[in-house]
Amino acid sequence: MPGRKRVVISNVSPSVDGGIYPAKAIIDRPLTISADIFSDGHDHIAAALFIRHKDEKQWKELPLQFKNNDCWETVITPTKLGIYEFQVSGWIDKVSTWQADLRKRYDAGQDVSTDIRIGIQLAEGLQKAATGKNKATIQNWISRLNTEKDPELRVGIATETGFAELARKCRDKNAVTVSDATYEITVDRELAGFSNWYELFPRSASREEGKHGSFDDVVALLPRVERMGFNILYLPPIHPIGQAHRKGRNNSLHASAEDPGSPWAIGNKRGGHKAIHNELGNLKDFKRLIAESRKYNIEIAMDIAYQCSPDHPYLKEHPKWFKWRPDGTVQYAENPPKRYEDIVPFDFETEDWESLWEELKSIIDYWIEAGVTVFRVDNPHTKAFPFWEWMIGEVKAEHPEVIFLAEAFTRPRLMEQLGKIGFTQSYTYFAWRNTKWELEQYVKELTQAPLKYYFRPNFWPNTPDILTEELVNGKENAHVIRLLLAATLSSSYGIYGPVYEYNVADATPGKEEYIDNEKYEIKHWDWDKHTKTFELICRMNRIRKEHPALQVIDNIQFLETNNEQLIAYLKVSELHTDTLITVINLDPYNVQSGHIKLPPALINKEIDESFVVHDLLGGDTYQWQGEWHFVSLNPYDIPAHILQLKQ
Amino acid sequence: MPGRKRVVISNVSPSVDGGIYPAKAIIDRPLTISADIFSDGHDHIAAALFIRHKDEKQWKELPLQFKNNDCWETVITPTKLGIYEFQVSGWIDKVSTWQADLRKRYDAGQDVSTDIRIGIQLAEGLQKAATGKNKATIQNWISRLNTEKDPELRVGIATETGFAELARKCRDKNAVTVSDATYEITVDRELAGFSNWYELFPRSASREEGKHGSFDDVVALLPRVERMGFNILYLPPIHPIGQAHRKGRNNSLHASAEDPGSPWAIGNKRGGHKAIHNELGNLKDFKRLIAESRKYNIEIAMDIAYQCSPDHPYLKEHPKWFKWRPDGTVQYAENPPKRYEDIVPFDFETEDWESLWEELKSIIDYWIEAGVTVFRVDNPHTKAFPFWEWMIGEVKAEHPEVIFLAEAFTRPRLMEQLGKIGFTQSYTYFAWRNTKWELEQYVKELTQAPLKYYFRPNFWPNTPDILTEELVNGKENAHVIRLLLAATLSSSYGIYGPVYEYNVADATPGKEEYIDNEKYEIKHWDWDKHTKTFELICRMNRIRKEHPALQVIDNIQFLETNNEQLIAYLKVSELHTDTLITVINLDPYNVQSGHIKLPPALINKEIDESFVVHDLLGGDTYQWQGEWHFVSLNPYDIPAHILQLKQ
Repeated sequence: MPGRKRVVISNVSPSVDGGIYPAKAIIDRPLTISADIFSDGHDHIAAALFIRHKDEKQWKELPLQFKNNDCWETVITPTKLGIYEFQVSGWIDKVSTWQADLRKRYDAGQDVSTDIRIGIQLAEGLQKAATGKNKATIQNWISRLNTEKDPELRVGIATETGFAELARKCRDKNAVTVSDATYEITVDRELAGFSNWYELFPRSASREEGKHGSFDDVVALLPRVERMGFNILYLPPIHPIGQAHRKGRNNSLHASAEDPGSPWAIGNKRGGHKAIHNELGNLKDFKRLIAESRKYNIEIAMDIAYQCSPDHPYLKEHPKWFKWRPDGTVQYAENPPKRYEDIVPFDFETEDWESLWEELKSIIDYWIEAGVTVFRVDNPHTKAFPFWEWMIGEVKAEHPEVIFLAEAFTRPRLMEQLGKIGFTQSYTYFAWRNTKWELEQYVKELTQAPLKYYFRPNFWPNTPDILTEELVNGKENAHVIRLLLAATLSSSYGIYGPVYEYNVADATPGKEEYIDNEKYEIKHWDWDKHTKTFELICRMNRIRKEHPALQVIDNIQFLETNNEQLIAYLKVSELHTDTLITVINLDPYNVQSGHIKLPPALINKEIDESFVVHDLLGGDTYQWQGEWHFVSLNPYDIPAHILQLKQ
Repeated sequence: MPGRKRVVISNVSPSVDGGIYPAKAIIDRPLTISADIFSDGHDHIAAALFIRHKDEKQWKELPLQFKNNDCWETVITPTKLGIYEFQVSGWIDKVSTWQADLRKRYDAGQDVSTDIRIGIQLAEGLQKAATGKNKATIQNWISRLNTEKDPELRVGIATETGFAELARKCRDKNAVTVSDATYEITVDRELAGFSNWYELFPRSASREEGKHGSFDDVVALLPRVERMGFNILYLPPIHPIGQAHRKGRNNSLHASAEDPGSPWAIGNKRGGHKAIHNELGNLKDFKRLIAESRKYNIEIAMDIAYQCSPDHPYLKEHPKWFKWRPDGTVQYAENPPKRYEDIVPFDFETEDWESLWEELKSIIDYWIEAGVTVFRVDNPHTKAFPFWEWMIGEVKAEHPEVIFLAEAFTRPRLMEQLGKIGFTQSYTYFAWRNTKWELEQYVKELTQAPLKYYFRPNFWPNTPDILTEELVNGKENAHVIRLLLAATLSSSYGIYGPVYEYNVADATPGKEEYIDNEKYEIKHWDWDKHTKTFELICRMNRIRKEHPALQVIDNIQFLETNNEQLIAYLKVSELHTDTLITVINLDPYNVQSGHIKLPPALINKEIDESFVVHDLLGGDTYQWQGEWHFVSLNPYDIPAHILQLKQ
């Protein structure tokens, strides 16, 4: 009887493309589920959420509460990793409508005897649908209503909330409207939303100059990584490196015998994506690195680059997975007229795509088996989208704790799509957002609908591929500023070190790239050096760890400042226990002073009452009063305040 | 082979709720259809729109053009009323990718002989899918390519656009991605988007005092309506009026024998929704009114109020369509503790809902048969939404020219839903938007996505139910200002007259309602009276008729002014032949002066070059120069400029 379903449901949230893709959430963190639910006329409505983890058979029913403007909502807290699914339903609540009308009529002095009889008819109707105890309770209610003679008491019985509750339980399922789609939510662990990444090349990890670094050398660096406050240690590919067309220093086409090659040219006769470059160690060494890291609460992120060097065993074992040219050579990567002859891409349009997909997934399975829980995926936007959707879905069905970071620096629609089809986190354009306006616009876009439901940003001021002009020109001051921006604007961020904390910023002329790039050579670093950048990273990550306000991203509110070089924002933690005001001088060259404006609602005090803010970065405490506050920040000292508002 | 479809399609436009409801368009007006279409990697993409009118079997394929940011689009011009449906599809264009790469390689001086062979392989693949003439053309192309020895000419043959065209025609259908949904567009006639409404009570149309007006009296008023420039003449219900619980003057509960009752209390023993109140005339008279109106290019809009007086024949003939109280009386309309005993609502939850729906639809069919083409629907938000969706769908499938205006002054989500499920136009909150900020916000909301795709606003400064404080206090000046706002902000607007043009604005104390309301009594008007309001309505509607810029609504751009009492906006017609700048003084009491800022792009002239604007309302011509312009508007004179920019 579709014609009798009078309730309409629309605008279900969270949802991505009307339910085509899952939204994202974090375990043990409250999540609001809402929808616009309404009907014609003035009848009362009731609404419910039906939700279950995909592993469960039983749906759980939760009442939705009316919020405003026909929006209904409830807050759930997912307690299990993996995919939840939900539907929203709504119906005309005849009993509640009748009760409210009856009360109004009675209060207006109208005779309600006929209305009471209407209520009894309603109850008799419900009784038919009811079973067991409910049936008896309704009968009891009818009897009491029939027996009671005192008008006041009678209306009291009629309007008992218990009756409305029973009506809810015994509602006619045929008159209930259910949302068109079944919506999904991917629940990830906390690290998916709050993470500090550090990237280093293990081959440069040796403390002995001229020696190839190993996993054991990385183990020795774990205390340093912990001291800096990072909880994900990301290593470029650890697999055998191709010999054919190997690149030399500074990406030169001709490698000398000593050149180690780019770790992203994966595979040689010793093995491919499931093998380990022998100078780094063996599988046992790698597993030991993972185990040691755990002691420091650090997880190892593995690089997944689905591409081969021309020496990769796949070329011989699975020639169908590649494109072959009529001259019998394999099709290398290219962006005509540029050729990348050290890299062979997979052909995702191969007839043999199913075996290719299975093999690529088996690489992930292999390393998960070895203990890896985080994957940083190289250039996912150059591999077929349907593959990722399938692969990530399959892997996370078995291992919902696994995190995939999409390294896609490409056009907006492609980056968004990777988030929709399952990547846990995504690199961003942060490195190229410099002015106050650019930063504010970008962060607003990322933290509002629709992106906030599926795209988890990760802010990196540098990577082995990215050295911005800002860092080159602004030297140490810029490194500090960009670090503080990344770490306070975004709940996930990362740096590529030790070049970052050592303020190494020499670029290939005319390019936003490091010269003498570690991608093509082994470096030797003094791992004990301390710089201002190093110290501030340590301090910043400690603050991030202690302050829940910095552990989520969509709680940001930008504040007015009267100096365009000063950016300021407020972040308040979910439970309102932690209120931070960050002010950063964007200018690496000059002291900048000006006023910032706090929102009146925040101060929530008499206009002439003062309050205390404590600078978590600098350590000072200030007595403030009113809305506008003066700040002066010197880039040669600490170019920012992170002010905790003391309540 | 789903794994090999690499193209992704999202964000199809126009669409409503992801394709659940149809978008709206106007016949013979260009309409942009677009989607985000992309793939992994750098391959070229091709995309097509498939579109057909629902009456047609054959889909028409149109190429989509790359616009920017992965958005592809094309412009169509629907030439037939009714529903169009479309899908969007995209695929990897291997031939175009190969041609572009070949050209780059050749231009860079690389040897392309192997690449030519790859192209021939591509062509051979296409040939398998090709038939007839295409097969031969491809063969010919292969032969020419094989025969040609001159490298330059050979690359010329290889990169012929004809080959790319053939590839498009012979593409592998299995590798094409098609949009998830089939999207619908309801194409209405021009009047649906551009209309001037005038409401009058036919029973007050007599020129003889004390005489009940008739359809013939309305015919006599048609020249006046035409002179004022209205093209829809809307009449309150013309059906027999109930006797039981009839309302007296000023909505009093007790009617005297002379009181005519409210036309919305429909039905008595003489008939119901398909009958005519005998003092107005008979069906023949009504048809004559329709026919006479056509001569003036005026259409008659009929009121559809799906409700009954207690005397309506339906109550006896179809008791199941109503709710009955246990005391045997019918359930009248109420908003407890208020009772509306002269009105009986239909029970849309009746078991007999199918026969109710059919009968309600048959009322529309009956009047369409009589010549009615426009319906103003009374309080649609108090009847079940699924009914409207079905009824309007059924009626418009047979009569796509029919226009339904939703008279719903209710909460936003309900008003939006009525637009989604098929109402052609909707009343709005315009009457209560007074300040510059309120008007700008509201018009922006209406003219941007998502509302612009399905909600066609109709601006009424007054109705028999609405007399705002603004009109009461501001008298004639306010009537003129609100008229000019409605007629220049919205492409559809209407007034209830002759109270409006005669500036009648006496309110029931404490209410936004006319006192001595025409709903409950017959009025006698001097139909020859001229007022400033009357004259400006005539002028305004002439301007609307002559200026395409005012005939669409979503072409508005608000302009900066330095006086909050001055609102200014720019409207440019689709073909850029008509550019109007409207400036209105919102203050009915004082002269307001200030500057308005024209967008630099509009002026498009040297900074010191002057240009001419002509005031269509006042008749003056001004020589302007630069961006900022002084205006001074007196509400006791003409409180607005409508300036045409002379190119």
